[in-house]
Amino acid sequence: MATKAAIPRLMTLADLSVPQINRLLAHSHYCKQRTKPWLEPQTHKPSKKNELRMPSQSLFNKTVALLFSKRSTRTRLASETSISLLGGNALFLGRDDIQLGVNETPRDTARVIGGMTEGIFARVGDHEEIEELAKYAPVPVINALSSLWHPTQVLADILTLHEHAHLFNKPDTKGDTPDYKNMQTSIKSRKRDKITSLPELRPLTVAYVGDSANVLHDMLVSYPRMGHSLRVASPAKYRAPPEVWKRVEELGCDKGIWWGEDPKEAVKGADVVVTDTWISMGQEAEKAQRLKDFQGYQVTEALCREGGANPDWKFMHCLPRKQDEVDDEVFYGPRSLVFPEADNRRWTTMAVFDLFIGRWDVSADGSKESSTD
Amino acid sequence: MATKAAIPRLMTLADLSVPQINRLLAHSHYCKQRTKPWLEPQTHKPSKKNELRMPSQSLFNKTVALLFSKRSTRTRLASETSISLLGGNALFLGRDDIQLGVNETPRDTARVIGGMTEGIFARVGDHEEIEELAKYAPVPVINALSSLWHPTQVLADILTLHEHAHLFNKPDTKGDTPDYKNMQTSIKSRKRDKITSLPELRPLTVAYVGDSANVLHDMLVSYPRMGHSLRVASPAKYRAPPEVWKRVEELGCDKGIWWGEDPKEAVKGADVVVTDTWISMGQEAEKAQRLKDFQGYQVTEALCREGGANPDWKFMHCLPRKQDEVDDEVFYGPRSLVFPEADNRRWTTMAVFDLFIGRWDVSADGSKESSTD
Amino acid sequence: MATKAAIPRLMTLADLSVPQINRLLAHSHYCKQRTKPWLEPQTHKPSKKNELRMPSQSLFNKTVALLFSKRSTRTRLASETSISLLGGNALFLGRDDIQLGVNETPRDTARVIGGMTEGIFARVGDHEEIEELAKYAPVPVINALSSLWHPTQVLADILTLHEHAHLFNKPDTKGDTPDYKNMQTSIKSRKRDKITSLPELRPLTVAYVGDSANVLHDMLVSYPRMGHSLRVASPAKYRAPPEVWKRVEELGCDKGIWWGEDPKEAVKGADVVVTDTWISMGQEAEKAQRLKDFQGYQVTEALCREGGANPDWKFMHCLPRKQDEVDDEVFYGPRSLVFPEADNRRWTTMAVFDLFIGRWDVSADGSKESSTD
Repeated sequence: MATKAAIPRLMTLADLSVPQINRLLAHSHYCKQRTKPWLEPQTHKPSKKNELRMPSQSLFNKTVALLFSKRSTRTRLASETSISLLGGNALFLGRDDIQLGVNETPRDTARVIGGMTEGIFARVGDHEEIEELAKYAPVPVINALSSLWHPTQVLADILTLHEHAHLFNKPDTKGDTPDYKNMQTSIKSRKRDKITSLPELRPLTVAYVGDSANVLHDMLVSYPRMGHSLRVASPAKYRAPPEVWKRVEELGCDKGIWWGEDPKEAVKGADVVVTDTWISMGQEAEKAQRLKDFQGYQVTEALCREGGANPDWKFMHCLPRKQDEVDDEVFYGPRSLVFPEADNRRWTTMAVFDLFIGRWDVSADGSKESSTD
Repeated sequence: MATKAAIPRLMTLADLSVPQINRLLAHSHYCKQRTKPWLEPQTHKPSKKNELRMPSQSLFNKTVALLFSKRSTRTRLASETSISLLGGNALFLGRDDIQLGVNETPRDTARVIGGMTEGIFARVGDHEEIEELAKYAPVPVINALSSLWHPTQVLADILTLHEHAHLFNKPDTKGDTPDYKNMQTSIKSRKRDKITSLPELRPLTVAYVGDSANVLHDMLVSYPRMGHSLRVASPAKYRAPPEVWKRVEELGCDKGIWWGEDPKEAVKGADVVVTDTWISMGQEAEKAQRLKDFQGYQVTEALCREGGANPDWKFMHCLPRKQDEVDDEVFYGPRSLVFPEADNRRWTTMAVFDLFIGRWDVSADGSKESSTD
Repeated sequence: MATKAAIPRLMTLADLSVPQINRLLAHSHYCKQRTKPWLEPQTHKPSKKNELRMPSQSLFNKTVALLFSKRSTRTRLASETSISLLGGNALFLGRDDIQLGVNETPRDTARVIGGMTEGIFARVGDHEEIEELAKYAPVPVINALSSLWHPTQVLADILTLHEHAHLFNKPDTKGDTPDYKNMQTSIKSRKRDKITSLPELRPLTVAYVGDSANVLHDMLVSYPRMGHSLRVASPAKYRAPPEVWKRVEELGCDKGIWWGEDPKEAVKGADVVVTDTWISMGQEAEKAQRLKDFQGYQVTEALCREGGANPDWKFMHCLPRKQDEVDDEVFYGPRSLVFPEADNRRWTTMAVFDLFIGRWDVSADGSKESSTD
């Protein structure tokens, strides 16, 4: 029987310690390696039928409700496919199926959905909505994307950087990476069969050029704690809101963040340049103003050359992408990690669902881990 | 091979005998107990992979079409999760996916959907629509909610009352419960492992205060036959339609029903008070008129005290709930059974799907039952 | 490990050789027989739990994305149910979930969906859209229906004709069937357990009366190659577009096609008469004009008698059906094969998914086939 001590929840990476984040990354990497062979075209008949199951079936017989008040292709693909891999059933409820607070209180909805499913993955508008769901649901609630945070995206970003650690092997000579070694937790090696451990990553300089939105917010509360320095260029009026800065400061992450308005300055010494769309869903009315405000923010070869990025800089973007924020040369070029990054949404979501929803195991050391052998 | 004698269908509880209803309740209770341990957080690895399956997999490899022309959170959650638990595949078709009668005749739709799935669970507008589906579909058709009936809701209500039988243990001294003992069928005890049988329920006085809609209609054709007396307060203009009364009288249920317009009189001696929203989907235009017509019908402590309800009265509501029909004190208070009632939607739906769709077994005695050990 | 030589795709039957088409038909027939017993009401408990699985589980753990920019009841039912039977997970993305080209380029969408799923079944508007998806997706892409082609429908039609071969047993004495014997490949018999091989079909005269749309286009590139002669009546202005005729001529199918404007002439000697709706989705604005253009094209007993069809002629229609194009007497009468035809959508889709998505096996001889025992 499970310990009912506390119901796991994930609102933002700020809720997790660095060892907890590293455990999720290691488990994502494990899930990916363990699963991929099963997704190959089937050229032979399984010798025994019960060979068919994946090792972790922590969602077997269970249903996870996907509460999406806004459209979200990647998040939906990642969640439905990983629930299926864990043996579970995904129940998608879009804005035509349910509207939080319209027909009944969010409190009642949370209790009812939580009473018939074993987890809720919610993509809401205002962040308060998911806090309300988590408050009243008797099952784990995971933030699929809110006005403030996007934890599963940033997990996928960091996993992608670790997997491409070999691209960053050259010693960092820029000198502006703060000494966060003591904050960084090495990911313990696991040698089982042919499963390899997640490659270690040297401290990076990560530049974010663009709108201060949910993806950046979760970067602000995680990268500095994990030993990376963060350089952000965003127009002053789009600065992250106070509730985000509060979490940043509580975690001591502000020490690892440079913040300004000049994209060129931001990419100085950058090993990785990250951006996001300038016009998120619901902001279509502000389009003209935003295009004006972000003039000069497009990520291009020229910008990074002139700004003095690491000549081997790589590019990430959570998608969907418009040409406004990054040109084709960068986006489709050899620097781009965007598609491995998108693919990794599946594996980090699978890890979160397995541990938080399937097993209610949020421990940092994996002491309760029993299925990763 | 199955007997193809007759295709099972469930339009209203009026279609079932009391022993058939009791069988469904007992099977719901069994499914619930058998399933719940599987839904706990998984803290260990299953020792053998084939331990993973539930005992009843009567929907294995099969698909049940969920034809929902109107939104229905609870009904959808209950059906998708229980189909999954029975090993099957739920195929949701909302009003954007299919519109009965718009692009082809309901007859053609029924035949085509029935030709590619193994069951249809339909939430329609006019009750005639589901009768049309049941007439032409070559597979079992279950009424998920129609303008006239809501059988799976009332099954969940009765299950909830049985499970809380201990709350009603004091002998009924009100004296207005008719002698329906001869109509009541005791639910046979089943002793298997740790599975307990459904607790017996003493004859109750059940009051319904509010709109005469589908939930009440299925109460009218079932409660009196099962030994309970029903007291209804509803404005005269909202009296149940003739086709409902016809079924009520055919079943001799009218003898167990008191019907009036005064909420206080209705709750006299009530062990349970039930209500429903005053404004159902599609009735938004009548809102002002309805709020006026139902003035004084809100279920409150004061109403029930003044009306002379059993001091231990309990409250039920099928949800979603508005404050109009019941205040917060009752709804969220200790009398409220609303959330266990909502949770039970899953187990009664699972029982109906297992027996009616998965096994085509509508017998009252469970003589064909083979998976409940 | 699978050979990654080429990613399978199916845009139109014109892409396949006759032996490849025959392999798909034979495999459909096999899947149908192998599956049907599993869909019977379950009257006994499986003796061993691992007996539950179907033999081919080539989609186990895998997800197929259903990208439907237009509504499509039959195609959706066929795909979701067959994915489930193959052990996989169907992920439905309707026009509210994703809009090709609106929020990101189709190229990015194809890569992202293909990176998180193992196959794409797309029902698009303009045929170019699915070509674009197939160009950039790293997984098999199957055409569920486009402006030009409808390959899975015509596979179901031909399967239906083979299954009803006994209805056409009388020697064809009409004399206008061209000698395509050398083009016809016999379907090899397979004797396993009680699985029977697909009945052979004598060369038929197939008449198509109505709009020149996607279903007819795939008939044009397949029937003549398979030994059947095709007689088409369609108003001149609706003649199939040049890109279709190009494929017809490349395959030498034009020699087996008679094309005119007179329905009566078209049904001369017809063993089978086929039609489709005159007003497809998106053509509602042209309704009045189309009803006028197709005057006299309604399939009736009188039309076929006067035109000199084979007295035993049978009728097919891909549905949904309006009375405009065929009257009730024919549609619901004994000549009608429309519902077996609709049911067969499931089995041909299952065969295509098993071979093309689950196993990446597009061989004509089934040399890689290992699950059909």
